Amino acid sequence: MPRDRVRERITSLDVARRAGVSQSAVSRTFTPDSSVSAKTAEKVRQAAAELSYRPNILARSLITGKSHIIGVLVSYLDNFFYPDALEKLSNTLQSHGYHVLIFMAAQSKNSAGEVRQSDNSDDAAAIDKIVGEILDYQVDGIILASISLSSTLAAQCQAAGVPVILFNRSQSGDYISSVTSDNFAGGIKVGEYLAQTGHKRPAYIAGLATASTQRDREAGFMTALAAAKLTLYWRGEGHYDYDAAARAARIMAALDPLPDAVFIANDHMTFAVMDVLRYECGLSVPDDISVIGYDDVLVSSWPAYNLTTVRQPADEMVAETVSLLLKQIDEGQSDVVRKAIDGPLILRGSCRTQQA
Amino acid sequence: MPRDRVRERITSLDVARRAGVSQSAVSRTFTPDSSVSAKTAEKVRQAAAELSYRPNILARSLITGKSHIIGVLVSYLDNFFYPDALEKLSNTLQSHGYHVLIFMAAQSKNSAGEVRQSDNSDDAAAIDKIVGEILDYQVDGIILASISLSSTLAAQCQAAGVPVILFNRSQSGDYISSVTSDNFAGGIKVGEYLAQTGHKRPAYIAGLATASTQRDREAGFMTALAAAKLTLYWRGEGHYDYDAAARAARIMAALDPLPDAVFIANDHMTFAVMDVLRYECGLSVPDDISVIGYDDVLVSSWPAYNLTTVRQPADEMVAETVSLLLKQIDEGQSDVVRKAIDGPLILRGSCRTQQA
Repeated sequence: MPRDRVRERITSLDVARRAGVSQSAVSRTFTPDSSVSAKTAEKVRQAAAELSYRPNILARSLITGKSHIIGVLVSYLDNFFYPDALEKLSNTLQSHGYHVLIFMAAQSKNSAGEVRQSDNSDDAAAIDKIVGEILDYQVDGIILASISLSSTLAAQCQAAGVPVILFNRSQSGDYISSVTSDNFAGGIKVGEYLAQTGHKRPAYIAGLATASTQRDREAGFMTALAAAKLTLYWRGEGHYDYDAAARAARIMAALDPLPDAVFIANDHMTFAVMDVLRYECGLSVPDDISVIGYDDVLVSSWPAYNLTTVRQPADEMVAETVSLLLKQIDEGQSDVVRKAIDGPLILRGSCRTQQA
Repeated sequence: MPRDRVRERITSLDVARRAGVSQSAVSRTFTPDSSVSAKTAEKVRQAAAELSYRPNILARSLITGKSHIIGVLVSYLDNFFYPDALEKLSNTLQSHGYHVLIFMAAQSKNSAGEVRQSDNSDDAAAIDKIVGEILDYQVDGIILASISLSSTLAAQCQAAGVPVILFNRSQSGDYISSVTSDNFAGGIKVGEYLAQTGHKRPAYIAGLATASTQRDREAGFMTALAAAKLTLYWRGEGHYDYDAAARAARIMAALDPLPDAVFIANDHMTFAVMDVLRYECGLSVPDDISVIGYDDVLVSSWPAYNLTTVRQPADEMVAETVSLLLKQIDEGQSDVVRKAIDGPLILRGSCRTQQA
């Protein structure tokens, strides 16, 4: 059945015959940067249109070594930062003549049944397997969003001449390029701002322990608190998960006295925390407790949350990721580059601006 | 440079030499459903592992006529229904050995600078061009999410033997298959429920005029109102756009008397409407006005909105879309099928349940 379909397809030979030119002339007409006279190209295009012929990009990729496909591996799209980034990545790559082949990493669940992002070590083997599949598609490059890669597989990609960029994650070792926001600097901004605005009992709700974003945001926050001679009053864990963050908020709300501020490692968890504080505990944000998040996703600007948060500069992160990837594809180079782009603290209504 | 890369790649011939078998045996080992002895396959896999050889899926697709790639065209991901659906589509296709190649339709903006979905007729030529590009990738099938297709191009896809399914849109004419929720039945449920709960002045805020979802939801709603001898008190237009919906809400909130209920054609617009009513106009939902949306996206269940809404059964819609597409790929048939899946009205707190 499939073979019949292949045989029925109009080939470049059919077009060549109709146009009265060589098959090679047809191929050159449809290959960017190939040499063919305007007159020949016109005859070929005319014949191709009459026959409804379309060049076979996959066949061409075997000759040129370019599929113009970028493999993108994402672990989940619940956190609104990722669909937004995926849309921007797709649009930007498309404007450069590339397309995104999506691979979803299987989600593992912890004992509480929460969805966990797949950058914990249990999932390393599964991620490596999927990246192997991505390589099978002869992609020109790979972007891993919120996912890490084993050193073995990074080496394998390098051997295959396929550049890999981590998006919104970095990892230790010197074998893989990454583009993130400057999460450490972002954490510092939050700590400094809470100190400046007179908060005395700052709390923190952490993201997924294995994620570089979690580690760097908390490290920056703690550094700023120490510089301001403030002590962390309470620490909870939300694993970048909505339900886990809601549970952490319930524990926090029972403290006496209540923290006067809480920094939460991403906006997605912050929505859960604010909803628990307001609708379960009857607390007011920011009158009873100030709340600051991280990401500045679309919903954060909506009046229902009106969230003070550190903006991840998604446009710049995407532009840098694509630019770096295309450079590595074009030049065949694979120097390891680590970009951390500064993002501003966006002041809205969820954090009080004056001493209580 | 790329040619060097191609030449450096380990080929099936290298594997065959190392394993001491024919090149054809290597090829058969890596082609699903091919006949090869267990002993030979083991030798081949061993040699392949030693050489870090990976089969070239694109080269194989030229032989089998199958790329195992499904092209998915989406117009935007702002409405949370689409990233959720895209994740489910990717996961389901992946579990069947297929992968999603994403194409983004360019967004056109109207005179007010709002992002419009690309199923208005102005964008038809742009959509046709992108679908042409998708065909160039020898995809096995195409899914169009919230986008329509010209009859010319639908015919071209059919001629190329590539099945196409519309997801969350249907269109008139009998040339293209679609999977939607039963939007007419959903609209009826909303109208009947508002009548049963004693609402007297129902309003409606419409979605994008050219979208089948908008047309069918409104038609069902109006049918139920007529059956209950209720008159539509006011109608506004939100074009499935957050900002346009907020403007419609401001006009509505100035009416005297206020409508006692408003049905809004999707949840994405409903968040804007609720925020305007509460935070700009100081109105209470549902005490001053009941609000019902459509989609039941994740945010709708969050306490901040706690939205009564018609659920689009995304899991069933995705399962049906994938099942239909794979059937058409396997059987080479392209009967036009239109599936409209019933979705329940989810009762939460944004609509009063008793007569005022």
